Amino acid sequence: MPDSTTPYLRNDTGVAMAIEQAKALLGERLSTSQAVRDQHARGEDYFTPAPPDAVAYVQSTEEVAAVVKICAEHKVPVIAWGTGTSLEGHVTAPHGGITIDLSGMDKVLGVHPEDFDCRVQAGVTRKALNEDIRATGLMFPVDPGANASLGGMAATGASGTNAVRYGTMKENVIGLTVVTSEGNIIKTGGRSRKTSAGYDLTHVYVGSEGTLGIITEVQLRLYGVPEAMSAAVCQFDDLQSAVDTTVGVLQYGIPVARMELLDDVQTSACIDYSSLEGLVRDKTTLFFEFHGSEASVQEQAEAAQAIAEELGGSQFAWATKEEDRAKLWQARHDAYYACLALTPGKRGWATDVAVPVSRLTECILDTKKDIEANGMIAPICGHVGDGNFHCCIMLDPDVEAEKTAAYDFTKRLVDRALEMGGTCTGEHGVGIGKISSLQKETGEAYEYMRRIKLAFDPDNIMNPGKVVAL
Amino acid sequence: MPDSTTPYLRNDTGVAMAIEQAKALLGERLSTSQAVRDQHARGEDYFTPAPPDAVAYVQSTEEVAAVVKICAEHKVPVIAWGTGTSLEGHVTAPHGGITIDLSGMDKVLGVHPEDFDCRVQAGVTRKALNEDIRATGLMFPVDPGANASLGGMAATGASGTNAVRYGTMKENVIGLTVVTSEGNIIKTGGRSRKTSAGYDLTHVYVGSEGTLGIITEVQLRLYGVPEAMSAAVCQFDDLQSAVDTTVGVLQYGIPVARMELLDDVQTSACIDYSSLEGLVRDKTTLFFEFHGSEASVQEQAEAAQAIAEELGGSQFAWATKEEDRAKLWQARHDAYYACLALTPGKRGWATDVAVPVSRLTECILDTKKDIEANGMIAPICGHVGDGNFHCCIMLDPDVEAEKTAAYDFTKRLVDRALEMGGTCTGEHGVGIGKISSLQKETGEAYEYMRRIKLAFDPDNIMNPGKVVAL
Repeated sequence: MPDSTTPYLRNDTGVAMAIEQAKALLGERLSTSQAVRDQHARGEDYFTPAPPDAVAYVQSTEEVAAVVKICAEHKVPVIAWGTGTSLEGHVTAPHGGITIDLSGMDKVLGVHPEDFDCRVQAGVTRKALNEDIRATGLMFPVDPGANASLGGMAATGASGTNAVRYGTMKENVIGLTVVTSEGNIIKTGGRSRKTSAGYDLTHVYVGSEGTLGIITEVQLRLYGVPEAMSAAVCQFDDLQSAVDTTVGVLQYGIPVARMELLDDVQTSACIDYSSLEGLVRDKTTLFFEFHGSEASVQEQAEAAQAIAEELGGSQFAWATKEEDRAKLWQARHDAYYACLALTPGKRGWATDVAVPVSRLTECILDTKKDIEANGMIAPICGHVGDGNFHCCIMLDPDVEAEKTAAYDFTKRLVDRALEMGGTCTGEHGVGIGKISSLQKETGEAYEYMRRIKLAFDPDNIMNPGKVVAL
Repeated sequence: MPDSTTPYLRNDTGVAMAIEQAKALLGERLSTSQAVRDQHARGEDYFTPAPPDAVAYVQSTEEVAAVVKICAEHKVPVIAWGTGTSLEGHVTAPHGGITIDLSGMDKVLGVHPEDFDCRVQAGVTRKALNEDIRATGLMFPVDPGANASLGGMAATGASGTNAVRYGTMKENVIGLTVVTSEGNIIKTGGRSRKTSAGYDLTHVYVGSEGTLGIITEVQLRLYGVPEAMSAAVCQFDDLQSAVDTTVGVLQYGIPVARMELLDDVQTSACIDYSSLEGLVRDKTTLFFEFHGSEASVQEQAEAAQAIAEELGGSQFAWATKEEDRAKLWQARHDAYYACLALTPGKRGWATDVAVPVSRLTECILDTKKDIEANGMIAPICGHVGDGNFHCCIMLDPDVEAEKTAAYDFTKRLVDRALEMGGTCTGEHGVGIGKISSLQKETGEAYEYMRRIKLAFDPDNIMNPGKVVAL
């Protein structure tokens, strides 16, 4: 079922020698226990788990380089691991090898409030960073839902609810430390807010999913915590009016911080799971958040409310207090658990695409028809300001037919998005799940991705079988 | 003096054959006249002019591909040309070859107001685009001063006065059509506002200065024209207070659209050249622009004025009316001509670096000391919100000693910026002028730029001798 077609000769002798050398280097921090290997056999996806031969718990860039050098010598696969929350099979080890667990590299290395930037080790999570910098009045806004590591977020080009205002990791990573496939340590980008110095290596590595090198440090942009933040909920009888409202908000130039859509099925699931008062089941729901000065937030909110009202939306239900706002966004982030509660015994396979906003209504409506026609349950929510939406396909992972049906559904979803000028994934990435989709989307350009892979990792040891099929 | 060290065997037989074939393809649109070749011998820089052997005036992506295929067959250099306004020798032809002039590819291919994007041929200039989309209520904000072509702006990763609010070309190009070194036509990115589909080829080509392929179409983000725009000028007795004001504005979270610094020398030059009333000579000057709703602009301006006042700035002088605003920014864009008027008979060599904003005062003050110590005239202005500043070194291009002194000065400026955690160029790029600076800045990472070049252009025909020395 997964797309990976990379031939890879298992190299048992090499693996054994690499493990021995890595063990000499790391001692107990190199684990070959079955339990640890199984923990690192997959992310939050439903591909067949594939454990690595060993897991290296590293504490420094130099240790990462040393382990990669050992693996390079023996041509053994190296898989980077942050928190294991990726969704397209990025962290499985279908060819074995050594998984480098970076969660122990959890130091904030420097915060520069005057420059609105900071440098962190790859294992620092986004919540830990925001906790660490709270006293500075700054924040790091990118929020993919999971409390992912910032190295993993950079490696997968993560995004999320705030991207409509603050951008994705692509816009917010300004420099990296990377261990290359030869075990060299290089730095890309830097501390200046902009640069035009040569090829943009930072953006080559951001989103490369560990296939070109291992990110060990990340330089990030920070933002001032807004003076005022306010969230609101608005409901619509139909999807079209909700999407039209978001287009209106964007066109009016309202600098909305978050604008999230829940379809009728997801709305009901969230109401039930998170006891959201005042919301009506079976409607399309928009969650908004506004950031700015007190006056600006009020102005933004009034303008958005006027647009929504004109399109038949309900009165905004406000969450101005911090705890109400937190509850609302917790409900949004708990959408997955709401889906689980909706379908006891099932698990969720989350997939995503993005299309131009003007095609979003059509794409979601066609997708809902597809879901119904195939008797599936797959609530939809989306970062609608970016034209990006998710289906959470509920299935029993032990029933192969359900997995196959889900896989086929994702392929149709991708075709639909591509036909509308969209992309096969807005934020979940390629991993092993979307390699053929990526080929379809990029056509002849795929060859140039392949060339980058071969130029940076000629022996194909960095997370082999992901993103590009060699 | 230039950094280019690429060995390149001139291939006169190949050039002759390529010209013959290109002539058969393009007829009179393939020119070998000395006048046309000389027009394409350099950009707005002071490196030794080097004309190509011929200039191809193309009208379509397919024609570009056909010319590149011919050049690839005969291993003849290909140089892309937009408006010739680049500053680091990007468009010279030190190894001869065929320059492809894309200025005739000037069609806006599609505007999608609902999606805030458009697609243009590479030769469309930024002013022509803004003229074309005026009726939609949208604008393209990136403004490097010159009325450059959007293909050239993408290829050089251009930036400018609006970057502090709207970002550079890196943030605003979402897709490209590129002709590769083999003459293949590929598409990168697309129309969705975000994607995580594979390696970020768009960002590989943006800023690659024609050395990896030729950009023939650009997909751009657009923005709503703000309801209100207002500009203001504020003066300071010292540089530190002016820079501190900009840091304060950023820290306060004021979404300033433009924030430009003119040092005392540049201020006087601009007052004289542009008859700026009400401004005092020999002071450090900040130009501001605020975009938003009427209320928001007023709020932003009041907040910025309060910060400036606290730091000893003068009362804001306002330019709210369109014509006053236009006059103010014309004066800023005419800074170069003001420098020329300041030093009759001289020409200006514009160079740039960027540093973290917290080091900007120190970097500019040290640079001013360097200028004085060497008896140079080199007014400074800067995109201070980005930590990016320019020196316009006034010199007589016929006096080799002045050019050498200017070159040596730029090397010291780069060293100073790098020592402060900055970059050798914030927006002018590498070209032939900053190759050794790029090597110094990137260290071991430079090798991975070299690998990209070799992977994408193994015969080194795409703008050879620029960015990376092979």
